Amino acid sequence: MKSSVNLKWTGNMSFETELFGHKLVLDAGTDNGGEDKGPRPKILMLTALAGCTGMDVTSILKKMRVKIDDLQIIVEGDMTEEHPKYYKSMKVIYQFKGENLPMEKLEKAVSLSEERYCGVSALYKKAIPVTTEIQIV
Amino acid sequence: MKSSVNLKWTGNMSFETELFGHKLVLDAGTDNGGEDKGPRPKILMLTALAGCTGMDVTSILKKMRVKIDDLQIIVEGDMTEEHPKYYKSMKVIYQFKGENLPMEKLEKAVSLSEERYCGVSALYKKAIPVTTEIQIV
Repeated sequence: MKSSVNLKWTGNMSFETELFGHKLVLDAGTDNGGEDKGPRPKILMLTALAGCTGMDVTSILKKMRVKIDDLQIIVEGDMTEEHPKYYKSMKVIYQFKGENLPMEKLEKAVSLSEERYCGVSALYKKAIPVTTEIQIV
Repeated sequence: MKSSVNLKWTGNMSFETELFGHKLVLDAGTDNGGEDKGPRPKILMLTALAGCTGMDVTSILKKMRVKIDDLQIIVEGDMTEEHPKYYKSMKVIYQFKGENLPMEKLEKAVSLSEERYCGVSALYKKAIPVTTEIQIV
């Protein structure tokens, strides 16, 4: 199964693309010769992971009939100091809100995403440590 | 050096975040229980790579005083068939447009990005093969 993106250079440090019909602009900050017309590219790596596991977990919990009122997914990346600057580790924090949430089911949903479904996590884990934490807030 | 993202669940399969102040919505397609309010998360992995190397290459060529008229960066990802579905290989295609473009300088810029600067590529290459191709169109 193949997928692809096509980014068009729009001058200076900015690029434009359409992802599933949704326009996205990427740009560097003014401190790096850009004009901040959009986010920096590297942060999309963390965003991909958060979105992928978030969709897994909400749909698994729905099947388990666990009702959550709110969910935030925070992904922290720790970067190397030297070029090439890449994330050398990541941590995914799941913040659930709801009444009488069953911790063992939340843990089950998170571990199913991590181990079986989330293709973003699967690739990153081949390269670096990716840890998780569940919080009920 | 740390960076982080915070995705907020907005119901069903959709999530919202702000990246450097720029709003981004992610959603599943209608075939997967979503409403297509934004792109799927996994494609952001290819977008991150295209943007990262694109910014490297355009800024390196500027320093080399190589004038390009146009650049498109295509990243193709080949995915596994079984869960977890992850990109098992990627290919980055640089399509340059311009007058009398010096191939050896384009190659130099691309290899500096790949080997020295692009932190997205650096991480992916720890896990999977990432190949490149330069085209003058």
